Amino acid sequence: MKINGTHYRTIWPDADNPKIIRIIDQRHLPHRFVIEDLRTVDDFAAAIQEMHVRGAGLIGATAGFGMYSAVLAAPHDRVDSFLQQAAEKLIATRPTATNLAWAVQRQLAALTTEATLEAKREKAFAIACEIADEDAEFCRRLGEHGLEIIKEIAAKKNGEPVNILTHCNAGWLAFVDYGSATAPIYAAHREGIDVHVWVDETRPWLQGAKLTAWELSKEGVAHTLIADNTGGHLMQHGQIDMVIVGTDRTTYTGDVANKIGTYLKALAAKDNNIPFYVALPSSTFDWQITDGVKEIPIEERSGNEVKYVTGITAEGKTETVLIAPEETRAANYGFDVTPSRLITGLITERGVTAAHKEAILALYPEHR
Amino acid sequence: MKINGTHYRTIWPDADNPKIIRIIDQRHLPHRFVIEDLRTVDDFAAAIQEMHVRGAGLIGATAGFGMYSAVLAAPHDRVDSFLQQAAEKLIATRPTATNLAWAVQRQLAALTTEATLEAKREKAFAIACEIADEDAEFCRRLGEHGLEIIKEIAAKKNGEPVNILTHCNAGWLAFVDYGSATAPIYAAHREGIDVHVWVDETRPWLQGAKLTAWELSKEGVAHTLIADNTGGHLMQHGQIDMVIVGTDRTTYTGDVANKIGTYLKALAAKDNNIPFYVALPSSTFDWQITDGVKEIPIEERSGNEVKYVTGITAEGKTETVLIAPEETRAANYGFDVTPSRLITGLITERGVTAAHKEAILALYPEHR
Repeated sequence: MKINGTHYRTIWPDADNPKIIRIIDQRHLPHRFVIEDLRTVDDFAAAIQEMHVRGAGLIGATAGFGMYSAVLAAPHDRVDSFLQQAAEKLIATRPTATNLAWAVQRQLAALTTEATLEAKREKAFAIACEIADEDAEFCRRLGEHGLEIIKEIAAKKNGEPVNILTHCNAGWLAFVDYGSATAPIYAAHREGIDVHVWVDETRPWLQGAKLTAWELSKEGVAHTLIADNTGGHLMQHGQIDMVIVGTDRTTYTGDVANKIGTYLKALAAKDNNIPFYVALPSSTFDWQITDGVKEIPIEERSGNEVKYVTGITAEGKTETVLIAPEETRAANYGFDVTPSRLITGLITERGVTAAHKEAILALYPEHR
Repeated sequence: MKINGTHYRTIWPDADNPKIIRIIDQRHLPHRFVIEDLRTVDDFAAAIQEMHVRGAGLIGATAGFGMYSAVLAAPHDRVDSFLQQAAEKLIATRPTATNLAWAVQRQLAALTTEATLEAKREKAFAIACEIADEDAEFCRRLGEHGLEIIKEIAAKKNGEPVNILTHCNAGWLAFVDYGSATAPIYAAHREGIDVHVWVDETRPWLQGAKLTAWELSKEGVAHTLIADNTGGHLMQHGQIDMVIVGTDRTTYTGDVANKIGTYLKALAAKDNNIPFYVALPSSTFDWQITDGVKEIPIEERSGNEVKYVTGITAEGKTETVLIAPEETRAANYGFDVTPSRLITGLITERGVTAAHKEAILALYPEHR
């Protein structure tokens, strides 16, 4: 993705010293573009937990490089136990995201086959880069599949823009490049299809207001920011043609964990006969769990993320303000689960599938 | 309602000079308790439009006193045209609220029967006080009816708290006293029933975070603030026993206009078999309109109310921060309409009724 003329991914090894991994510290967007260097496992764990990076694919890629940093720091005499500790530390940072454990396990499995520490180091770097490259490539491909759906809707709109609602940020900032929910939108925009995106601001973290609006603005895609409460009203009045969201974990039975509030939009889409799509690279599938609502652990974060809002003042200073009585308690659930029955289709790197077990396993027969 | 030991209504004539009408300027809550004096029709119109006061009943009561201020200022030679202008100015301030036009029309109808300006002045003051008193009394009564519903739920909870979700502020700050959605909650709390309220923060204006949380805190009712996105997840997990909201306009066919986002919560309640109640004094019924979704005008306000958030800094200073890219456009719809099919019942001052035409007209036969 280009920012002010320069191509960026969301995570990359430093060109001069690839032992240093660089990320965009997303906490400062949209007002400041800050690049941060990560060196130690603790750096990586903090970056994930404190949301310098976030989003399904990017959490996975960051964990992949985090395991590489663990191998770099591992003492010769106890490599395995050191890596195991690093793996546990990284996995514990965010409980809902599948890609996190998936990337860590992929590293552990690959590293056991290497005998020497030197070989493990080379392997860990190669695997981390492979996870990142694959994430970008899978997002690019799912964008092509999603583009076909947008084309079909555009064909019925007689030149009117295709209005797409999205929730949270499943953009290139949530992956290594392209994004999941945004990949079909960017592909459509590049093909000259007139798309307009309704951007849910996505409380409490405001990923929509701060990240998705910024991405779309940089890409020149028409968009309008709305409070999360607004989508139902827009759907009732024919102002939304389709919904595309991302996901942090999707069961192989088609239940979708995504940013809190996604379920409410899926209900409204169903009530108004509007197609509701979820875009994901296959790394986000959970091949073990069958009942998403009952079984996917939902992260609870600090209530202060609800009570305090950060932005910039008229003077351009970053400031945090309290928006509720000091004594009021707030609860902060990070995700909800949308049951498969509300989902029109899953857009993956292998194509679009219905959100149920048989269809998903037909596309991924290796998981039967 | 008591604030720090003193009983307040939300609007009242000054004890020393009843030509001055006093309100709580709600824009400063919860951080500052500011009382404002209103004297001219322009003061009243600005107080409604700029949301110093808001909420169905309080908008009506304010408009009632606003018409009194118009009579006070009316020149002897053109009273009627002056009042007509004042009426139009007040009605134009907020398009969705029914109580506004209802209160203004009630004043106009009463004033035509008075011959002299002096008699009109006395009458206008009497009617304004009557509207305010009736609003408080109707809210008290609907609280008693709603209490019975809470008692029934409490009886099945074996001493566990009754968990009630509410959206926006339909509390005493939205009426003259008691509130609509909160009246049954306050009645239950006073009877010693263990109630806990999930408070939707209610973006973009944050009436839940700023007003409902403050009210409940002052009354000592247990509550937890949540982002608007959260209710669906809580319902899926059995953490909500009932929903009670207010309304700005309800058709006699049972469609409910209320703060944007209400429709999404009604869909989630239906999907999880959770009772969804709407509390309203009869002044909020629209006896003309039959299709709420198609016919109720929905107010659009400035997108800046989405892009900027006001609160207090750590130093206690009121500050406004930008939370999105400067160049991003935002849309700001104030209300949505929940179709009657999603509503379990309407709690009115005459009792609880199903949300359909026959049941509503059976309770209000004078509108047949």
